[in-house]
Amino acid sequence: MAVSVQTQTKRVPASNAVERLLSATADDMARVNALILDRAQSHVDMVPELARYLIESGGKRLRPMLTVAAAMLFGRGTGAAINFAAAVEFMHNATLLHDDVVDESDMRRGKQAARMVWGNKASILVGDFLLGQAFMMMVETGDIESLGVLSAASAVMAEGEVFQLAKTGDLETSEADYAEVIRAKTAVLFKAACEVGAMSGGADAAGREALANYGLELGNAFQLVDDALDYGGQSGTLGKNVGDDLREGKMTLPVILALADATDAERHIIAGALGKADASEFEVQQVVGIFNRYDTLSRTLDKARRHAASAIAALDSLPTSEMKTLLADVVEDSVGRAS
Amino acid sequence: MAVSVQTQTKRVPASNAVERLLSATADDMARVNALILDRAQSHVDMVPELARYLIESGGKRLRPMLTVAAAMLFGRGTGAAINFAAAVEFMHNATLLHDDVVDESDMRRGKQAARMVWGNKASILVGDFLLGQAFMMMVETGDIESLGVLSAASAVMAEGEVFQLAKTGDLETSEADYAEVIRAKTAVLFKAACEVGAMSGGADAAGREALANYGLELGNAFQLVDDALDYGGQSGTLGKNVGDDLREGKMTLPVILALADATDAERHIIAGALGKADASEFEVQQVVGIFNRYDTLSRTLDKARRHAASAIAALDSLPTSEMKTLLADVVEDSVGRAS
Repeated sequence: MAVSVQTQTKRVPASNAVERLLSATADDMARVNALILDRAQSHVDMVPELARYLIESGGKRLRPMLTVAAAMLFGRGTGAAINFAAAVEFMHNATLLHDDVVDESDMRRGKQAARMVWGNKASILVGDFLLGQAFMMMVETGDIESLGVLSAASAVMAEGEVFQLAKTGDLETSEADYAEVIRAKTAVLFKAACEVGAMSGGADAAGREALANYGLELGNAFQLVDDALDYGGQSGTLGKNVGDDLREGKMTLPVILALADATDAERHIIAGALGKADASEFEVQQVVGIFNRYDTLSRTLDKARRHAASAIAALDSLPTSEMKTLLADVVEDSVGRAS
Repeated sequence: MAVSVQTQTKRVPASNAVERLLSATADDMARVNALILDRAQSHVDMVPELARYLIESGGKRLRPMLTVAAAMLFGRGTGAAINFAAAVEFMHNATLLHDDVVDESDMRRGKQAARMVWGNKASILVGDFLLGQAFMMMVETGDIESLGVLSAASAVMAEGEVFQLAKTGDLETSEADYAEVIRAKTAVLFKAACEVGAMSGGADAAGREALANYGLELGNAFQLVDDALDYGGQSGTLGKNVGDDLREGKMTLPVILALADATDAERHIIAGALGKADASEFEVQQVVGIFNRYDTLSRTLDKARRHAASAIAALDSLPTSEMKTLLADVVEDSVGRAS
C-alpha cells in the first residue's frame, strides 16, 4: 500500500529541509520576525506579553517561511511578501489561541498553553487582536486580491473548526468528512500562504495555481502526519501525550478507518475511550492495539504520502531551481517526521 | 451639572429617531439584511443556526443603519455601503459572541446567550467565522482604504476588550482608563461604521472627518448611557439584571466616580460587591445607594450628554438636510433612553 513520494523526479533524499529553508529565507525571515514583534505591541501590557509568549515559543514558522520562499521562487520581491508572511503567522497564532481554549489544551509547543497562564478570556481576545493586526498588515500592501485569498482562508478555517467540533465523538464521521475538516482547518492556510507568496513574487496565473496546489497538498499531508503522530506514528509506539485526540473525541483518520473494519467488541472499546478526557494509558493502548490490527496508522501515513507526492507534482511545470528543489524537500521532510 | 444637548442647533425634540432612521434607510437595509442572511450560510449546519439565532434576535442594527445613512447623506450610492454595513454588523456580532464567553453572560437581547445553547466553543469559532466573512465582504468592494479603517477598528476593539479585562476589579482604574476602554471597545466601531459609509457615499475629506467624529462621539455617549442603565439609569431604580457590571467587576464610570468620593466604609462596601458573581440584590442596592449619594449615575449621564452634544456639533459643517437632522435626532434618542 505504501506509495513512494518520489514518483515524479529523482532527487537525493531530503534531510533537514526545513532548516535549509530557514537558511535560504534568513534575510526575509529576519524582516518578518521584526515585523511580528513590532505588530504584537500594544499599550495594553497583557497583549504583547501573551502574544510574545506564544509567538516566541519556538514554533518553526513554517507558514510564513513558505510565503517568503514562494515569493523568492518567482524572483520579484515587492516587499509585500514580508507583510503577508507576518499576517499568515498572526492568523495561525490567533487560531492556536482559540483552538487551545476550544480543546481545553494544557500544553502548546512543549510549554504551558497561554490560556493556562493568562486564562481563556485573554486568549480569546488576544487571538482577536492578532487577527485584526493581520488584516491591517495585509491592507498596507494595497494588494486586494491577496487580501481576498487570506480573508477567504480565515472564514474557511473557522468553518472547518466548527465542522470538527460538530463531528466530535460522532462514530458515523466519514473519510470524506475528515478530508473536509483537514482541508479547511489546516490545508487552506498552507495554500493561502504559498499562493499570496507567489503572487507577491510576480507569478503568472499558472505559477500561482502551482503554488496554491503545492500548499494545499502539503497542508493535507502535514495534518495527516500530525494525526498519525498523535497516536505515536507508524508503529503506534506510546509516548508522552499520546492519545490526546482520542481523549478529545477527535474523529481523525486512524479512528475512522479502525471503526470501519472493527468487530462489534472493538468498536465498543473505541467508543468507550473516545472523548473520555480521563481515559487511562491502558485504554489508549487498547485502542492503538486495534489500530495496529487494521494497520490504520500506516494507512493514514500512506495517504499523507500520496498528498505529499501531489504537492511535489504541483511544482512540475515550474523551471528547475534550487528553491524548487528545496520546496520539494520540505514536503519529504514533513512526511519523514513520522517514520 | 446637566448640560443640554441642544447647544448648537434648535430642533424639535427627537422621538422615535431610530425608527425613523429605519424607515429612511429601509430599501438599503433590506439589501443589507438579505446579504447578512446569505453570508451567514455554511455547509456546516451549526454555523448558520448559531449565527442566525444571534443575528435575528432583534438587535436594532443601529451600526449598519448608520453606515447606510452616512452614505445616503452624501448621496452617491456606489453599492459598497451595503457590503460595509453587513460587514460592520458581522464584526459587531462576532464581538458579542466572544464577549458573552468572556463575561460568562447567560442572556443576550432578552433571550439565552448563544453560548448557553451551543456552548462556548461554538460561540468562539462562529465568531471567528463571522469575522472572516466580514473581511470577505469588504474585499469584494475593492475599497482598500475603507478596509483599512475597519481592520484597524477590529484590532482596537480587541485591544479595548483586553484592557477592560486587565482592569476588571482594579479599584485604581482612572476615569482616563475608562474613557480609553469605551472608546476602543464601542466608539471605534461606531466611528468606522459612519466613516466608511461616508466614504462609500462619496464624501470629501471634511465630510469623512465629520462623520467619523459623529460616530465616535455617538459611540461614547451610547456606552456611557449603557453603563448608567446597567445600574438602573439616572434614578438608580432597581429592576431586572441590574448590577451585572458590578457582579462582573467591570470598572465603569459610576463605580470609578463613587470610589473617588466615597468614605472608607463605603469603599469597603463597593469593593466587597465588585466582581462577586453571586452578590445579592441587597448588596447591589447598597452600592447603588452610594452612587445616589454621590450622584454618580446622573454625572455619568451628564458626560454622555456632553459626548452627544459633540456628536451633533460634528455635523455642523454639513449642509442642512433631512438625513442630517435625523442623524442628530438619533443621538438625542440614544441619550434619551436613560431618562
